[in-house]
Amino acid sequence: MSLPPSDQPHTSLSTHLAEETLHQTRWLRLKKLSYMDESQVKREWDCVERTTRSGEIDGVDIIATMIPLEETEKHVVLISQYRPPMRAYCIEFPAGLCDSGESAEQAAERELLEETGLKICKISRVSSIVGLEVGMTNANCRIVCCEVEPIKISERPKQQLEDEEHITIHLVKLSKLFDVLEEMTKNHGFIIDAKVWTYAFGISNIH
Amino acid sequence: MSLPPSDQPHTSLSTHLAEETLHQTRWLRLKKLSYMDESQVKREWDCVERTTRSGEIDGVDIIATMIPLEETEKHVVLISQYRPPMRAYCIEFPAGLCDSGESAEQAAERELLEETGLKICKISRVSSIVGLEVGMTNANCRIVCCEVEPIKISERPKQQLEDEEHITIHLVKLSKLFDVLEEMTKNHGFIIDAKVWTYAFGISNIH
Repeated sequence: MSLPPSDQPHTSLSTHLAEETLHQTRWLRLKKLSYMDESQVKREWDCVERTTRSGEIDGVDIIATMIPLEETEKHVVLISQYRPPMRAYCIEFPAGLCDSGESAEQAAERELLEETGLKICKISRVSSIVGLEVGMTNANCRIVCCEVEPIKISERPKQQLEDEEHITIHLVKLSKLFDVLEEMTKNHGFIIDAKVWTYAFGISNIH
Repeated sequence: MSLPPSDQPHTSLSTHLAEETLHQTRWLRLKKLSYMDESQVKREWDCVERTTRSGEIDGVDIIATMIPLEETEKHVVLISQYRPPMRAYCIEFPAGLCDSGESAEQAAERELLEETGLKICKISRVSSIVGLEVGMTNANCRIVCCEVEPIKISERPKQQLEDEEHITIHLVKLSKLFDVLEEMTKNHGFIIDAKVWTYAFGISNIH
């Protein structure tokens, strides 16, 4: 890494001072935070938090790959579902909230099985804690990268969905991921999750 | 793209029905949404929205690359700043909210100049509208991929920051991005934005 061209010091750090809950529902909590900025000026910031976090993270996102039986190329597992906040069907990595006491690896194994019926056979990497929309919320996750037991493309692994869940599985060749996402957006009206888009852009090697 | 292994029909689509604002601050609005699910059951969902959106998107994220003068490898421009919702310093792509009437390209040019002092010389790609945390919020953006005018690594481009902004610029070799992010997390306590992590993981070619 190069040194930052900026000479702003990190010596007088910003610090969290206090927080006040403005409104709370079963799932979300709207807060006003106060903090000290680098110039030692006290400032305020609005923020939303999930009420459901019991450990260090809200949940996991799962980058699951496999070479399907009778195929030769690596595919990634994506899902789509209706997302009320977006008023649209969204393409996402399989994901879910952690249950109390559950590790990221355990949550990934459970959520992937529930949402897709697929079984993890090897976890290759678990990310540090990452932020999801850091100007607005403390929502965070770990990203669990794994290989899953291969299936035939035509096979339908048995999902274990709740009544209110309707999740469609998409297996997409890594080498075509970026173009497939563009096609799904343009021709089928899906909204792509930003993490999926930047992953595909990273793979595409056209930066 | 393969056909989805799932046979769930998209014929009986979910639809947005109504919404109610539960609490509003200057910047955020907490809502209760009601929608019809695929089984034609009416359900509710909590959601938060920015109050500042004037067009189709809240803002832009900017994937800016350059080969610095006296270097031979492509670098990506990242920034870090204190993010009150995360109670931490976060590593992000340069980004910002769109002003009224501003296109994604215009917002990217303005925000990159303000936050980093760097000037866009070529926009190579603008993403479709992407979602940022689609289970919680309608927050969205377009991702503007561009090349910027090269500088010397030791140079300090002139940022145009507001009083409350304290932004540090990081120029990172694409070939080392994934390892640098891990190092920044482990040794310096930064939280990585999820989009930056999945981009780096995509580039790393270790999926």
